[in-house]
This record gives sequence, structure tokens and C-alpha cells, in this order.
Amino acid sequence: MLNFDFHNPTHIAFGKDRIADLDKLVPPHAKVLILVGGASAEKTGTLAEVRTALGARQHATFSGIEPNPSYETSMKAVAQIREGGFDFLLAVGGGSVIDAVKFIAAAVRFEGGDPWAILEQHGRNVTGALPFGSVLTLPATGSEMNNGGVITHRAKGAKLAFGSKHTYPVFSVLDPTKTYTLPPQQLANGVVDAFVHTVEQYLTYPVDGAVQDRFAEGILQTLIEVGPRILAAPEPVYADRANLMWTATLALNGLIGAGVPQDWATHMIGHELTALHGIDHARTLAVVLPSLLDAQRATKAAKLLQYGERVWGIRTGTDDERIDATIAATRDFFERMGIPTRLSAYGVGADSVDKLVAQLEAHGMVTLGEHRDVTPAVSRRVLEAAL
Amino acid sequence: MLNFDFHNPTHIAFGKDRIADLDKLVPPHAKVLILVGGASAEKTGTLAEVRTALGARQHATFSGIEPNPSYETSMKAVAQIREGGFDFLLAVGGGSVIDAVKFIAAAVRFEGGDPWAILEQHGRNVTGALPFGSVLTLPATGSEMNNGGVITHRAKGAKLAFGSKHTYPVFSVLDPTKTYTLPPQQLANGVVDAFVHTVEQYLTYPVDGAVQDRFAEGILQTLIEVGPRILAAPEPVYADRANLMWTATLALNGLIGAGVPQDWATHMIGHELTALHGIDHARTLAVVLPSLLDAQRATKAAKLLQYGERVWGIRTGTDDERIDATIAATRDFFERMGIPTRLSAYGVGADSVDKLVAQLEAHGMVTLGEHRDVTPAVSRRVLEAAL
Repeated sequence: MLNFDFHNPTHIAFGKDRIADLDKLVPPHAKVLILVGGASAEKTGTLAEVRTALGARQHATFSGIEPNPSYETSMKAVAQIREGGFDFLLAVGGGSVIDAVKFIAAAVRFEGGDPWAILEQHGRNVTGALPFGSVLTLPATGSEMNNGGVITHRAKGAKLAFGSKHTYPVFSVLDPTKTYTLPPQQLANGVVDAFVHTVEQYLTYPVDGAVQDRFAEGILQTLIEVGPRILAAPEPVYADRANLMWTATLALNGLIGAGVPQDWATHMIGHELTALHGIDHARTLAVVLPSLLDAQRATKAAKLLQYGERVWGIRTGTDDERIDATIAATRDFFERMGIPTRLSAYGVGADSVDKLVAQLEAHGMVTLGEHRDVTPAVSRRVLEAAL
Repeated sequence: MLNFDFHNPTHIAFGKDRIADLDKLVPPHAKVLILVGGASAEKTGTLAEVRTALGARQHATFSGIEPNPSYETSMKAVAQIREGGFDFLLAVGGGSVIDAVKFIAAAVRFEGGDPWAILEQHGRNVTGALPFGSVLTLPATGSEMNNGGVITHRAKGAKLAFGSKHTYPVFSVLDPTKTYTLPPQQLANGVVDAFVHTVEQYLTYPVDGAVQDRFAEGILQTLIEVGPRILAAPEPVYADRANLMWTATLALNGLIGAGVPQDWATHMIGHELTALHGIDHARTLAVVLPSLLDAQRATKAAKLLQYGERVWGIRTGTDDERIDATIAATRDFFERMGIPTRLSAYGVGADSVDKLVAQLEAHGMVTLGEHRDVTPAVSRRVLEAAL
């Protein structure tokens, strides 16, 4: 096991009817800015519930945080916070809104000039942030219980990640019934996003992280169990939604990645697919992962065999046959979730590969993966095999 | 899944040579009281390492915290802290020392008269505590990453538990090499203690806590894998010690118990065996658990079958046969860890049962277990079956 630090101070309030707890979770005299994405939080009644729970506290709402949240929109929120003297932020939404609120909270307190510098330094220059909480409505990214975010600077055409010990949510309210209004595609994306987060921290090489491996496998098994059931259910089933919501949080709250190597090449290659072709984040992961696992089958062999055996019950055949079957089972799972795993299904052809590889190079993504051996040439092979 | 809150702010610094990090973890101008049990922390050199890491900080050492730590000893530490103006406490040891330091930290700040009231109110009246950290030398209780403690009032003959949001360690340093000097019996006790902590939060009745179940099973599988190997190894193996240490922490840091029912009857019955017969805590658990599982086999049937299948691979036979085999496998595991699972092995006979049951009644332990149906009559049957 590798040395590690684990420190996650976010308070999770999980379950039915927990939004009412905002009254206890938000400081009593806070002046609260609620931040949301589009109109759905208003339409579903979640915003009304939030406002009721805030009681006599002064509050206002900032809306319009987009998927792949932008620096530009975030800075409008920063201006509103400064003008209005808000001292507590409340993200209501999914990973995009929470990511943006992390950046906004740090930007309000940032004293090093243009807050874009926070992204350029990946958060190392953050020395404080406004306190903030979240009400999660879309299980997927784990942003509700970690300190990371990804922000896009539209004018610069740059998408960068940051994190800081100051950007953990003080609390996150996780009410599984808030997922009941999500369309199937967003639920499927959430399952696959959480699945690939787990794989990025698990499918590397063995370092005797026995309990980390078991936890990662437990998350994958749970997603495999509840994912297709959620898609097939004519009406939402609370238990399945609860398991998806808590599992997606645990997939990226630092726990399963503590003390083990991490990969993240699939995410980095996937980001370019989103940037150039507008494909949903989770869908890019479903496309890239099977192909990447195949390309890296030699260095990942030991963990691929373990994953195949423990998660998919694949125990017979030569090592190569078992690895083939394991990658096929992974691809099949994504397809069963209604997510195509070939670039052709998204209208992306061989002619896009050059540009995608060039973008990886332009963004410095030239030594990816747990061994830093996913060079642009390897990324090219991965993309070509995913056509 | 049941509604739950999860909030664990302890910073874990895990790995080889992490004691040096105390210099970063302890506030720079703190006046530190180091608290230890017996002489072993001094003898093994751990205390010297700690003192070196504290650098120029003023510090002193309080030694003599006993196993099953006492109110009386704790109050001597409280007096030394007040006289010396210490403002940061550092527990160096196992669960007993860390439990005591939690109580001491709360007692120093307690304004409600005699701090024993903290135990009488189980910590509900704690409104603050001195900040404290720990350096763990004995993996077992999980005290290094939770807010609970058990304190014995020798004069009153009472042993009570408490917990408060103010009594989480600020940090805990977990260096697996610090377990290298432990005798086999303490290592075996640690494995069994962590195992039974997990079972108390897992082997109840199904509430669709899919990921909690998987995590609990992962902890049990890890302990079953590394426990016997640790006992058999001629020299300490880092990977196994690391897995034991981190697994024991995860077994009782609130995570696997969040959103699911909990039992704890085995612990409560076991406490009386320690109190009356001086049997090591973990050994009392190894005696009581198999017998309790058998007595509660009807209400625990669904989870016993799941545990048998997923953890022990028991898949054939009638339900009753599978449950028998599962309980036998559990008992056999404890025995393989060198821990007898019958009271007779500890010199406790049938003549002690009346007194043990009377003590349970005297301590109000009359409706134990996840269904509150472990009455004194059931506890009697459990003890008689364990003779």
C-alpha cells in the first residue's frame, strides 16, 4: 500500500426529506446565495423546498450555471456575491453546479488577481473560500463530497481542473427522491460516470491495497446491480436510487483512491471528445475505457484478471481470454445502460483522430496513466480502436 | 437504506515514516501533552520519534493510562493539563489511550461540574474539547478515526461509553511499522475486534444498503485474508500490517454503519465478561458472537445466508445447514487466530452465568440487538451456549 493522506470533512445528510435539515446545516445568520443550473430545480419544486428550509435567512438565487461550467458565468456569480454581501453559498444541482460553486467560493476570496489563476495553478494558490453546501439532484460526479472541480474558460478555449483543502462542501444533502425526475439518459450517465471513476482508481497495478480493492469492487458490483434495474423500472424504486446516489459519492470522495495508484487517462482522452464533439462526459468514458483497457492490457493484466474474476465471475480460459471476456463484459454493461461505446455511434470518424490527438498534445496530456506511458501514440491507438 | 448522517473530520496520515509529519499536523505554537499507556511507547523508540517530530514545541508526557482506561487516571491528566496550560493533546498508543484522551479533552473544557457527567449523558452535554491527535500503535478499536470512547469509573464500578462531535481526533498518524513490536496475542485481538465491529454493523436484517454490505464484506474478507498470515509470518510483512491497520480503522469510522441497522449485543454481553473475569475485550467477542448468531439465527437469517455466501463461499445445503456452516466458519476463524471461543477455556463455568446476567440487568442492558429483543433470558441462553 502506498503512503496516503485521507481527510474529508464534508458532512453528508442522506435520505428522504433531508432538505428540511438545511435549517440546521446553514449558519443561522447567513446571507445565502443559492446557485442553480437551468430551470429544473425550480420546476421540480426543489428550489421551493430549499427556500422554505432557509426560513428567515436572507437569500437570493443565481441561475444559469451550464454543463461544463464556465469561468465567465462563474465570474458573474462572484460579482453578485460581492455586491450583495452574501456569506454562504448553496449549490442546488449536479456536478456542474457544485464544481462551479467551488470555484466561485474560492474566487470570491482570491487575492492573487484574476481568479483564472486558480485554474492555472490547479488550486495550489487557494488560501481560503466562502463556506458552501450542496443539495445534490444528480448522482454522478462525486463533487458533493470532494474538493475538486473542472472549469472551462470559453474565451481561452481551456478546460482545467483544480482542488484545494478549502473547497470541500461544508455539507451535502443527498435525497434520493430528488433523482426521480431525471431522464433515463442522465441516470445512465451517472451510473457510467461513477463506474469509470472507480475503475480509474482500481484498474492499475497491484500494490497490496486489499481493502481499497474490495471497496472498489463493491462499488462496481453495486452499480452493475442497480444500474440496469433503474433503467428498466417503470416507477422509481427508492432503494435503487439511494444505492446509486451513495455509491456515486463513495466512488470519488478520496476513499478508494487512498494508498493506491490512479490512472485517469480515460478521463483526459474523454475530455477532448467532449470539447471537440460535445459528447456527454460519461459517454466519452464509455467509448474510451474498453479501448484503453485493451491497449494497456499488458501492464494492467494482474488487476484486469482480478477485476474479471471478482466483479464479473470470469474464472476460466487463458489469461488473454479472461481479459478479453472482462473487457467485453465492461463494454456490454455500458451498452446495456443504453450508452453506445463506439465513436461511430456519435458521428465521429477516423478523420477526427488527428485533431483529438493534437488537442491532447496542446493540453500537455502526453504522459497519461498510472505509468505515465499513455503517450499521444497510445492515445491515437485507443481512439482508432474505439471508432 | 435508512436515512443517515456521515461526518468524519479526522485527517488520516498513513504509511511509513509518517510520525515526522507531526511537525506539520500539530499547530506550530502548541504546548503539547503526550499521553501514553505503559512503558512500551518509550521502549520501542516511538516516543523519541514523536518528541523529535514536535521540534521546538513545549511538551511533556503523561503516562499510565491503563487498558479499560479509568476516570480516576484521566482526571489526573486533566489536572496536569490545567496546571501546565497545555493546549494540544497527543495520544500515543492504542484504543485505550485514545479513548482516554477523548474523555480528557472534553473534561478539560467541561463546565457542568464533575466530568463524570459526560459519561452519564453519553457525551450529549459536551460543548467543546481541547484539540487532540493520535499516533496509533495498535490496530483494533478504530478509536483513531471516530468520536467514541469507553471509560471506567473504578470507585463506582461503572463502565460507560460516550461520544460527541467535539471528540474526533484532529488527525491520526497510522504507521503500520509501529505494529511490528506487538505480541501475537494483541495482533490476534486486533483482527477479531475489527471483525466483530464489522459484524455488529452488518449482520442484522436487510435494508437494501447494497454498498454498505459490500464494504462490510470487503473488510471481513480482508481480515480473513491477512489475519492468519500475520500470525504465521516469521517476520512482519508491511503489506499485511498496512491492510490490518487501515481495515481496522474503516471497520469503525462510521462509514459501514451509516444507513443500516446495528446490533452491538455481542459487545454489551462481552463487556460483562471483561468486567467480571478480566478477559481481553476481543476474546469476549470471539466467545459471545458465534453463540449469539446461533440464538438470533431466525431474525438474522437473510443476512447470515448472504454473509455465508459472499464471505465464506457457502452456497449449498438447506438454509439451516448453510447458517450452521457459516457460524462454524466464523468460530473456526477466531480459533485459527489463536483465540478460544468457549468460556471453559477462560476458566468461566456455568456458575458464573447468573452473575453475568444480573450485571447486564444492573447496567440496563435488557433490550439489546437490532430488534431490541436480546432480553436477559436471551443473553442467558447465549452465555450458556458459549460455555
